[in-house]
Amino acid sequence: MYDVEAIRRDFPILSREVNGKPLVYLDNGASAQKPQVVIDAVTRAYAEEYANVHRGLHTLSTIATERYEGVRGIVARFLGAKSEEEIVFTSGTTEGINLVSYAWAAPRIEPGDEIVLSVLEHHANIVPWHFLRERQGAVLKWVECDMNGALDTQAVIDAIGPRTKLVAITHLSNVTGTVVDVKAICAAARAKGVPVLVDGSQAAVHMPVNVGEIGCDFYAVTGHKLYGPSGSGAIWIAPERQAEMRPFLGGGDMIREVGRETITWNDPPMKFEAGTPGIVQTIGMGVALDYMMGLGMENIAAHERDVGTYAQERLAGLDWLQIQGRAEGKAAIFSFTLDGPAHAHDISTVLDKKGIAVRAGTHCAMPLLEHLGTGATCRASFGLYNTRAEVDALVDALELCHDLFA
Amino acid sequence: MYDVEAIRRDFPILSREVNGKPLVYLDNGASAQKPQVVIDAVTRAYAEEYANVHRGLHTLSTIATERYEGVRGIVARFLGAKSEEEIVFTSGTTEGINLVSYAWAAPRIEPGDEIVLSVLEHHANIVPWHFLRERQGAVLKWVECDMNGALDTQAVIDAIGPRTKLVAITHLSNVTGTVVDVKAICAAARAKGVPVLVDGSQAAVHMPVNVGEIGCDFYAVTGHKLYGPSGSGAIWIAPERQAEMRPFLGGGDMIREVGRETITWNDPPMKFEAGTPGIVQTIGMGVALDYMMGLGMENIAAHERDVGTYAQERLAGLDWLQIQGRAEGKAAIFSFTLDGPAHAHDISTVLDKKGIAVRAGTHCAMPLLEHLGTGATCRASFGLYNTRAEVDALVDALELCHDLFA
Repeated sequence: MYDVEAIRRDFPILSREVNGKPLVYLDNGASAQKPQVVIDAVTRAYAEEYANVHRGLHTLSTIATERYEGVRGIVARFLGAKSEEEIVFTSGTTEGINLVSYAWAAPRIEPGDEIVLSVLEHHANIVPWHFLRERQGAVLKWVECDMNGALDTQAVIDAIGPRTKLVAITHLSNVTGTVVDVKAICAAARAKGVPVLVDGSQAAVHMPVNVGEIGCDFYAVTGHKLYGPSGSGAIWIAPERQAEMRPFLGGGDMIREVGRETITWNDPPMKFEAGTPGIVQTIGMGVALDYMMGLGMENIAAHERDVGTYAQERLAGLDWLQIQGRAEGKAAIFSFTLDGPAHAHDISTVLDKKGIAVRAGTHCAMPLLEHLGTGATCRASFGLYNTRAEVDALVDALELCHDLFA
Repeated sequence: MYDVEAIRRDFPILSREVNGKPLVYLDNGASAQKPQVVIDAVTRAYAEEYANVHRGLHTLSTIATERYEGVRGIVARFLGAKSEEEIVFTSGTTEGINLVSYAWAAPRIEPGDEIVLSVLEHHANIVPWHFLRERQGAVLKWVECDMNGALDTQAVIDAIGPRTKLVAITHLSNVTGTVVDVKAICAAARAKGVPVLVDGSQAAVHMPVNVGEIGCDFYAVTGHKLYGPSGSGAIWIAPERQAEMRPFLGGGDMIREVGRETITWNDPPMKFEAGTPGIVQTIGMGVALDYMMGLGMENIAAHERDVGTYAQERLAGLDWLQIQGRAEGKAAIFSFTLDGPAHAHDISTVLDKKGIAVRAGTHCAMPLLEHLGTGATCRASFGLYNTRAEVDALVDALELCHDLFA
């Protein structure tokens, strides 16, 4: 039994007020709130058990290293990886994708080589490929979505040609909530010998993920969206791809021996982790993932489906509101604009007066918004602690907006 | 009046025991402990004020952005920078130096171009230059220290030749405690038109730093050694150098506009900060720097000089103990070996039984240890909360080691 009210009590910030109203936090697509167990783990790590990891033999260092390294197995379980050695810790999805771009893609891109990506991508899964375009002559092959935000899987597959070096694709759009059939794409790409990087930033928050079933080569997630600390993250990398990668960031931990004219690398995953890592935020991410798995990813998905369906129904009743993204099976992420002169920023400000936090802007997805023919939108993105009552609060406040700006 | 006992009470972990003995934490060179104000700031940020930054207009996002961006001014003050726009947030010194290597150095290194560095460097200030050697044919010009760990400033200056593109040098050795006269090096390098990157990881912990007085081009620091959270850091970059840098990590925040075939960058410092940053750890770093400045960097330095001088005297009385590093004016960092068969790891383990945390190993400085003709050493590194009584505890435990292994 998914007791959302009990779950809400696990998140201290949800009991606060904003502008004299109970906080209705619908900005989960930007970042999620943290349960008390995560905050407690962070506090305990600093107040009782802190030291650097991998570097010391003393008690505190041993404890910190065990806690930190223990998270690799948690992430592996969370993503359905075969081995914790397939997990590389990062500061978030952005670093994870840049790691792939610099350490795997850059050394093998020749001018004219192609990278296939969809127009649904977040800037984190666009800009690193623009670097390869600007610096090495890579060609970006964009695949369109339709005006509902749905992505034709076959169109992605058809875009994979003889010059394609990589498919870089989101699992779940942060703007439209579109769920991409990455499994089908990976199967076809594999048949053509092309690796696939999946941006799992949003998907891993809302649904069970199993990298083995998906059949991808890289799967990047970010801790702060997964109810964990800021500055935490991980990327799953298939062992064959790890073996092809050169190091990215240079420093301590990722080396075996450093001479004056020679250098050798540590084994993966350490080869890709340089310097003192995000010790405490990684420990906190592990606790957050355990918390999610404790609730059950299927249960979280079912709850969000219920709230999302309800939101879709209620928002559909507002005939002066346009939702960007109506793809079948979409997640509970709603980007919208209102008829009339109200800019997304105005709407967000009015909602905030009612205690409702939504994002307004282009959501780090300018090519998508351009494709959909819209400028800035508001976005209400739901998480595991949101409720139908919060949908009602959103709709009430939107009606107020409509009255104000009509 | 520097009341070290009162200061110790600010650090909750210092009241804990290890193996039934009061913790004597002498592993500050690896990472420092955190005062309660930092832990409280982290807790508050997650429990009461959390949201993503730069991305929202709602109240929580505005609060988080203000707290986060406010740290830029604190770091600027801490480093004596003219403007907070000269401060780029990083996940630590390693990322900071890699940023310089990838974004400033890599585009301008031709085969045969030289990077001058000293044998005192930490791997974080070696490996990124090895990348340029391996990938682009850069030549690493190493400058020796003497057997006391002292670095002849003139030797560094003399190593700067017509092919030198960069001097990369530590301000304070993490092994020997040597303080390098970076001001003199920067003045000479500037006269020759060569930029200088200073690795301030250790120096900024132990002495006042003013980048204007030093005259460097890059100055990198790391939050976790500065009594702040793990995964936090910053690099000061001179505006002229910022203007010469291309972006490094690609993602949100660092762009202005993203098209399908075109892309434009945000202004510095944002141009060099991609994706959701380390929000809460950066906020915590700001509180840590304020804490240090509240105590007074001169006062911290004076206190550590007192404890360090006392440690030097007491350790000098152990004629079966060899200290690596006896340079004039060195910081309170003591790497040592013992006569006889005891390996550094054994010594560290015995000290740990007495509650004393030191590091054993090669301290991410293999070229230096090789130059000094030693393998692994133990290292006792002092911080602002250490005391003469802790020196006595260290010496007592070392005498026990000597008896055990003699």
